[in-house]
Amino acid sequence: MLKTIEWTEAGVVMLDQLKLPTEEVYNTYTSYKEVAEAITTMVIRGAPAIGVAAAMGIALGIKNSQAADYAALEKEFTQICDMMGKTRPTAVNLFWAIERMRRKFQETDKNVATIKAALEEEAKAVYAEDLAQCKAIAEHGGALLPAQATVLTHCNAGALAVAGGYGTALGVIRGAVELNKDIKVLCTETRPYLQGARLTAWELLHDGIDTTLITDNMAGHFMKQGEISCVVVGADRIAANGDTANKIGTYSIAILAKEHGIPFYVAAPFSTVDFNTPSGETIPIEERSREEIVKIKGVQIAPDGIGVRHPAFDVTPASYITGIITEKGVAEPPFETTLKKLSAL
Amino acid sequence: MLKTIEWTEAGVVMLDQLKLPTEEVYNTYTSYKEVAEAITTMVIRGAPAIGVAAAMGIALGIKNSQAADYAALEKEFTQICDMMGKTRPTAVNLFWAIERMRRKFQETDKNVATIKAALEEEAKAVYAEDLAQCKAIAEHGGALLPAQATVLTHCNAGALAVAGGYGTALGVIRGAVELNKDIKVLCTETRPYLQGARLTAWELLHDGIDTTLITDNMAGHFMKQGEISCVVVGADRIAANGDTANKIGTYSIAILAKEHGIPFYVAAPFSTVDFNTPSGETIPIEERSREEIVKIKGVQIAPDGIGVRHPAFDVTPASYITGIITEKGVAEPPFETTLKKLSAL
Repeated sequence: MLKTIEWTEAGVVMLDQLKLPTEEVYNTYTSYKEVAEAITTMVIRGAPAIGVAAAMGIALGIKNSQAADYAALEKEFTQICDMMGKTRPTAVNLFWAIERMRRKFQETDKNVATIKAALEEEAKAVYAEDLAQCKAIAEHGGALLPAQATVLTHCNAGALAVAGGYGTALGVIRGAVELNKDIKVLCTETRPYLQGARLTAWELLHDGIDTTLITDNMAGHFMKQGEISCVVVGADRIAANGDTANKIGTYSIAILAKEHGIPFYVAAPFSTVDFNTPSGETIPIEERSREEIVKIKGVQIAPDGIGVRHPAFDVTPASYITGIITEKGVAEPPFETTLKKLSAL
Repeated sequence: MLKTIEWTEAGVVMLDQLKLPTEEVYNTYTSYKEVAEAITTMVIRGAPAIGVAAAMGIALGIKNSQAADYAALEKEFTQICDMMGKTRPTAVNLFWAIERMRRKFQETDKNVATIKAALEEEAKAVYAEDLAQCKAIAEHGGALLPAQATVLTHCNAGALAVAGGYGTALGVIRGAVELNKDIKVLCTETRPYLQGARLTAWELLHDGIDTTLITDNMAGHFMKQGEISCVVVGADRIAANGDTANKIGTYSIAILAKEHGIPFYVAAPFSTVDFNTPSGETIPIEERSREEIVKIKGVQIAPDGIGVRHPAFDVTPASYITGIITEKGVAEPPFETTLKKLSAL
């Protein structure tokens, strides 16, 4: 099983996704600040993986704490959570994980050693649940795909976007493959960060799944040629009405899918659904640096002085989405109702 | 005025577009084989520019010929034209230019020196007409744009895609700027060859036009945000019914424009219209190398062994096109009729 992140006695171990696909390097992060930095710089990325990393980072920070009493530990805990909360603004799983650790902190006896142990257990539970959820997503989604399909996916919603194992969108693909369905994958390279070319291509090749890489702007062409059966992508935040924030470019693909009558699925753990966000309009969109647009792995591709925009995500309105595949089952429109129903399960 | 290509006594001089935007290098090509190679390797690109380069390459080959008599010259001429015709299969301007040189060859007195002079004059005429056509496109298109607009363009249909000067799609933008309209440009980087990031960004910055670079997959997002007023792109071949082959990604942008109610214009010299091609379905689409997808300026971005597709163009059906801006005027739907009318002018 491909592992993205793991709790060890030495610290939090992460596969350095900035070095993929040419190098497979695992680093050990020994402080919460290092973990926060790894999230910000995208050593680890993908909304569910960010949630797991944040939980482990918080547990690590508390484990390392020199606080002599509860009051000092609580102060430190707030600082750690604040820093984690500032790493990536769009992924709701980050805030969900921080909130969960905060609840555990508050629920636990006010004893430093007890809290340290409880938060470590909680981070391990977040990790284990992530793996189990993805397995369930793979089962629900795998059953949904036709017996023979070419699936278009964007960005990386794979093992590398979660704690490891199945992944979300790629979990659906793996689930279908496990059911002996005849599945081919087209993956977009996903500029500017190239998560498709670097990560999705790498992990599907690793699993021996028939995968073809295309540039983002080819999606419409291959849909028109009849070469795409359905689209499956991940999500960074799903509003209560089903509007979905995901990697920049997802919205365009959703429109193209609609125009060609191709089903468009979102696959995500249920923790990605944010019932406090009524619609996509209020989801904050992270703007990342100009450097990531004008340079590719250090090589300059645009002239000095050119203006640049870099929204890292976009929002796909629910009306373009055929189904939302979660560990609790598949929600279909109207999502306002169906997501609430799944939530009660 | 920005010059892309020029006939000189020493040979055909071209701006090496592979070195842009970081280096501005002009090379002199002294044989027709070198010119053909420059077209194939995309030292020069853009459908109209390819036409000019082919005409000059043929004139250069004939000028350099050692043929003692007409029969030998004719044989050599056929060889030269064959090689030119194999450089890039999609751009109709290439075949148009070859055909034009062939006609001139056949019309001219069967005397080696006379033919050499006639073909040189013809190549110079192709060049001068290209500049004049782009100026006319700029006038027609500039008048068409609103007083205030943010124009999305894809790939490079600029000075660098023609002999120099205005360009086609960028000619429309320059024409509007000359009319003191308040014009901003969003240009897509245009993977895999990055003509937008390398060339369009460079030449618009060169002209002081307010330009912002985005990745291809951001187009839909900015349309949804209301930040794009219209789309203007070039064309590699326009079928008799208005279906338009252009750089891969154009079709996707056309769908996005339609979905957002944004006008979508094609700007091209009338020689791009191919009345022998009834619809887009029969336009051949060049497949280029896997190297251009998995490496960016020599840097590997995808794992070894991954499958790759690389269609260099796609076809946008006429139903997505608001208008086709040519030097003869602006054609509106139904293009089957309006293109024929313009053709008679």
